[in-house]
Amino acid sequence: MSGVGKLRGSYAKSEERRREILEAALEVFAVSGFRSGSIRDVAERVGMSEAGLLYHFPTKNVLLTAVLDERDEIARRIVPNGEDGLATVLGLVTLAEYNMTIPGVVELFCVLSAEATAADHPAHDYFVQRYEAVRSLTGRAFGLLAERGLLRQGIDPEAASRNVIALMDGLQVQWLLDRNSVDMPEEIRQFIRGVLTVDI
Amino acid sequence: MSGVGKLRGSYAKSEERRREILEAALEVFAVSGFRSGSIRDVAERVGMSEAGLLYHFPTKNVLLTAVLDERDEIARRIVPNGEDGLATVLGLVTLAEYNMTIPGVVELFCVLSAEATAADHPAHDYFVQRYEAVRSLTGRAFGLLAERGLLRQGIDPEAASRNVIALMDGLQVQWLLDRNSVDMPEEIRQFIRGVLTVDI
Repeated sequence: MSGVGKLRGSYAKSEERRREILEAALEVFAVSGFRSGSIRDVAERVGMSEAGLLYHFPTKNVLLTAVLDERDEIARRIVPNGEDGLATVLGLVTLAEYNMTIPGVVELFCVLSAEATAADHPAHDYFVQRYEAVRSLTGRAFGLLAERGLLRQGIDPEAASRNVIALMDGLQVQWLLDRNSVDMPEEIRQFIRGVLTVDI
Repeated sequence: MSGVGKLRGSYAKSEERRREILEAALEVFAVSGFRSGSIRDVAERVGMSEAGLLYHFPTKNVLLTAVLDERDEIARRIVPNGEDGLATVLGLVTLAEYNMTIPGVVELFCVLSAEATAADHPAHDYFVQRYEAVRSLTGRAFGLLAERGLLRQGIDPEAASRNVIALMDGLQVQWLLDRNSVDMPEEIRQFIRGVLTVDI
């Protein structure tokens, strides 16, 4: 029993370490960009050696993918998947606000999602499934709003879902190219306002 | 005089050759993708040696950038920049139809525009200016429609312009990941229909 307890303790400690590294990586890549931000910078921030960090994340690519997972996890907390469709779609506005604080990670997402459109890319399946999941989440939210009569006549919940996701992705490119060119949260709020019968 | 005539003739011939190469490159990269499609494939298609092609386009990157310019040129023919705002915005639907025939070039565009968001990327200024130009073109079209009372009340022409471009870009990623996930021309038509007071 004590052996199992020890293993559990060691597992929990390793998990905690992983989490610390991921949070540091998110900060480093968010500010320095994912190309310039180095494994060494991340290791320094958590007070580890590079070798110690590589034990948890053997390559920079593995770490970058884990950072995107971590960002997805944060996004899931920001965009609630409940029975209140309005809270879900308004969560997208809050998510755009959050994204403005992590430009390097948004850049990573844009580049990796574009590269992963190639069928033989290692992250291809991940992105296909991610988009399916995100479309399903927002589609369900717009569907719930339609049931409550809050979606404008003639607006298809699935189409609204595909479009608001495309809009968020496309605005990110314009914003990354020129931070003054678009106000992402406001544009998304306007889009959502345009498909609802209630003011938000 | 004959010397100048000869130079002109040689220049014209070189321009014609460049154009042939670009058209072949567009076809090769559109079908094979821009990573797998090789300089050799393009050279073979125009019946040239690789060395001959490299005289006109010294590296694959130079050729890829020229292919994007060529695509922009085709886009300018598809999306008229005239006084009829409706023709311009409907041109975007036709452009999405055309894009469906050149998936490899769309992929190239998505990856390069995302990579070029980094301020030190060689194509950064090109993409900043390209988006400014595209936003200005569609913004003017929506403005002309507003003047004729064809834009729905409360819709800002500039915002509609930013949004339709973002929508096109974002839909391309979803479409490249899964060709059955979105009907790009139809989604764009629906978006435009949503902001106009006339049916299209």
